Amino acid sequence: QVTGPSGEVMNAVVLLEKTPFQEEKISELLKKHMKLELQMRNDIYSTYHLYPPPELSELKATVVYPATEKHLQKYLRQEVHLVRETWEDYRNITLPFIQSQSFSIQWVYNILEKKAEADRIIHENPDPCNGFVLVPDFKWNQNQLDDLYLIALVHRRDIKSLRDLTAEHLPLLRNVLQEGKEAVVKRFGVPGSQLRIYLHYQPSYYHLHVHFTALSYDAPGSSVERAHLLADVIDNLAMDAAYYQKRALTFPLRADEPLLKRFQEAG
Amino acid sequence: QVTGPSGEVMNAVVLLEKTPFQEEKISELLKKHMKLELQMRNDIYSTYHLYPPPELSELKATVVYPATEKHLQKYLRQEVHLVRETWEDYRNITLPFIQSQSFSIQWVYNILEKKAEADRIIHENPDPCNGFVLVPDFKWNQNQLDDLYLIALVHRRDIKSLRDLTAEHLPLLRNVLQEGKEAVVKRFGVPGSQLRIYLHYQPSYYHLHVHFTALSYDAPGSSVERAHLLADVIDNLAMDAAYYQKRALTFPLRADEPLLKRFQEAG
Repeated sequence: QVTGPSGEVMNAVVLLEKTPFQEEKISELLKKHMKLELQMRNDIYSTYHLYPPPELSELKATVVYPATEKHLQKYLRQEVHLVRETWEDYRNITLPFIQSQSFSIQWVYNILEKKAEADRIIHENPDPCNGFVLVPDFKWNQNQLDDLYLIALVHRRDIKSLRDLTAEHLPLLRNVLQEGKEAVVKRFGVPGSQLRIYLHYQPSYYHLHVHFTALSYDAPGSSVERAHLLADVIDNLAMDAAYYQKRALTFPLRADEPLLKRFQEAG
Repeated sequence: QVTGPSGEVMNAVVLLEKTPFQEEKISELLKKHMKLELQMRNDIYSTYHLYPPPELSELKATVVYPATEKHLQKYLRQEVHLVRETWEDYRNITLPFIQSQSFSIQWVYNILEKKAEADRIIHENPDPCNGFVLVPDFKWNQNQLDDLYLIALVHRRDIKSLRDLTAEHLPLLRNVLQEGKEAVVKRFGVPGSQLRIYLHYQPSYYHLHVHFTALSYDAPGSSVERAHLLADVIDNLAMDAAYYQKRALTFPLRADEPLLKRFQEAG
């Protein structure tokens, strides 16, 4: 908070970031005389604290000034909690919550009906039951393969999430896995062994979709608490048709999400 | 490379890491007189370079010395490929490979026997069959909770990895999950709902251990292609005692890892 020209209180957002090491400065960093403190030693392993000079410790600061209430909310840290949802929790808490919400997924239907992004489609299997459309994700600018990010949207509109999947959906899921890999190697030259192919639970929208990201890219949402490998999903369903109607599933929720409150109220 | 006592060439691995900001030092960072360079200004947004003094720019260094060829390989940057390992692949390719290797885990035994890091132990269940030791991971300097990272090392020495787990190990795994959470909230005030508790497959050493990381921390190795939530592992074993002796498992391997070559040779 800063006092403005007429005495009013003005808010500023200041973001501080440590920037990645620059390869060409590493040798300088190791050569410069600097304070070194031993922290721990065990067998051949040891750890130290190092205190480098200012010119080798650049930080990046981003300032938003004056900042509105929305800017403040956007950057305030939200606590995140894990929920372990049994099938009964899904039926009694999560499903009614999803049904009470009206997230628009018109943008998904626009893609499936070629009303938007038709020129961006990488691959399509037009089968209404076992088909899908593969498109670049909004987050990927397609300038480099390092952060490759594609989304497969299924044509069927009756599958909300992982929780709805049964053995009935195996042909669809196998098409996405197989044809998706083939399309990516054909168009981008990235082999299937370098793709992370997974579903989110909870997803951010309730129309079944599958994420394809470069394995070398630490994609947001690829952590174990939210992502489920499509190959694992297929094997689980092949083993037990009702696997996802039995198993407890873990997922993260931000402290301000209403679904977390429902879980807390239910104990 | 360092010249050893008898003139021989010795290798060392030096890892440098920027550590997270410590909240209580942020105001000091903003108040201290330091070099500030405007980089960009646009409307209400601007960015700066900041050059903080050494005492506010701590780095963490991890040293492995003397380092073997294996240590060097482990830390060199490499292309990564995913392998999907069936149980037969494990028995025919992975297990013989692990048995042919002799990666020393003396440091694990040192901790379990209190020959090293005894003062760092956060919690111990001394039962030789169902007990474990919880210690801070080398990667965590314990200055802030943002990158909290602990490791539970089991006392039993006969469990190499996830692949060896059966329903017999459920009491041990439940102890790690339950007592581990209790110990972390007691010592650090971090509740279980903010902990990511998981195993790696493949692990980096073949003595069963469980990772505890802060949910807010994007910990290396917490991606879906390598991490398995302990709660999921427990549920899978409770459902099918031989789950991990049946199911295919995906894991990443760097291009230079001999195990990848074995898989490629086997097709």
